[in-house]
Amino acid sequence: MASQEIEALTQALAKLPGLGPRSARRAVLHLLKKREVALSPLLAALTAVKEKLATCATCGNVDTTDPCGVCADPRRDQRALCVVEEVADLWALERSRLFPGRFHVLGGRLSALEGVRPENLSIDALIRRIAAGGIDEVVLATNATLEGHSTAHYIAERIERFPVRVTQLAHGLPVGGELDYLDEGTLAQALRARRPVG
Amino acid sequence: MASQEIEALTQALAKLPGLGPRSARRAVLHLLKKREVALSPLLAALTAVKEKLATCATCGNVDTTDPCGVCADPRRDQRALCVVEEVADLWALERSRLFPGRFHVLGGRLSALEGVRPENLSIDALIRRIAAGGIDEVVLATNATLEGHSTAHYIAERIERFPVRVTQLAHGLPVGGELDYLDEGTLAQALRARRPVG
Ligand SMILES: [Zn+2]
Ligand SMILES: [Zn+2]
Repeated sequence: MASQEIEALTQALAKLPGLGPRSARRAVLHLLKKREVALSPLLAALTAVKEKLATCATCGNVDTTDPCGVCADPRRDQRALCVVEEVADLWALERSRLFPGRFHVLGGRLSALEGVRPENLSIDALIRRIAAGGIDEVVLATNATLEGHSTAHYIAERIERFPVRVTQLAHGLPVGGELDYLDEGTLAQALRARRPVG
Repeated sequence: MASQEIEALTQALAKLPGLGPRSARRAVLHLLKKREVALSPLLAALTAVKEKLATCATCGNVDTTDPCGVCADPRRDQRALCVVEEVADLWALERSRLFPGRFHVLGGRLSALEGVRPENLSIDALIRRIAAGGIDEVVLATNATLEGHSTAHYIAERIERFPVRVTQLAHGLPVGGELDYLDEGTLAQALRARRPVG
């Protein structure tokens, strides 16, 4: 019954994770009623993000600059590299503010079931970063899932030949847990107690 | 740690009802990853809605046209008027597709506690619509709350002098229930069994 435009907005919002049709309708009503304090800022923020959105060619992070804010920050420890499956994991670790180094986003995890093979992830790019030198430690911060573990082990084997310390997050992650869902305390503990892959 | 633009987008989304900081972050990540299928349609929909957004001068509905789609529809029964507290309630009734007439949005309910008095609601405009004639029935579809009931009674007294049938939604609404939260079956039942205010 709503106009075509309002219906389109409701559907676009309903597709966001965490919002269903009902909450999308409530969100739309909120936006319509709070034009100046809700709709305008959201529209401006979306426009700005869309215009500037970039994938970091170095690490795979999504940001409004390339290189991303993390890669461009000269205060970050250039010698420590943390390998994560997804951008969401990078953000989760950044929120904990505990990792001083930089990141490498794989873009997923190896999965026989889903047909994800090494060449579908940015593993070659990771090898090139490590081969270029200057990195002392690689933290394999894949999820504590079966696929996360085998991805970490595959990468550990591939980088065995380089003079870098390869570590992984300590157990402390709940089994089956995905980084992005963990509280910062658990993440902090897991990162502090990281240990060599072996 | 995210850029200023991404942070602004996260905050704008986190203010929507139903989304907190965590789900807003997940929504932002989804938008960043699905630029073409998620971010672009949402941006286009928001832009279209913002450009066209209008409050219907007749009924108070929010739509992209004034008069709104309901008021402009010649197939609607011009003799039946349904009075609701909020635009959300109008939308909830429209979703049930059971009321063939038109609407009048009060913009709230009388509340001594919140200092909402008759002049703060569009009650005078309602009286003018009824005084203009052509209306046979006024359905007072305020919420089944104490304040909703007293608002309905106040309006019923004000329009007593007009030759219209004044009805209210049947009990069937759970006590304390707000229209916008009810399933369509309950709404349908309550509307079908509506009875004269007495
Ligand atoms: Zn980067
Ligand atoms: Zn209208």
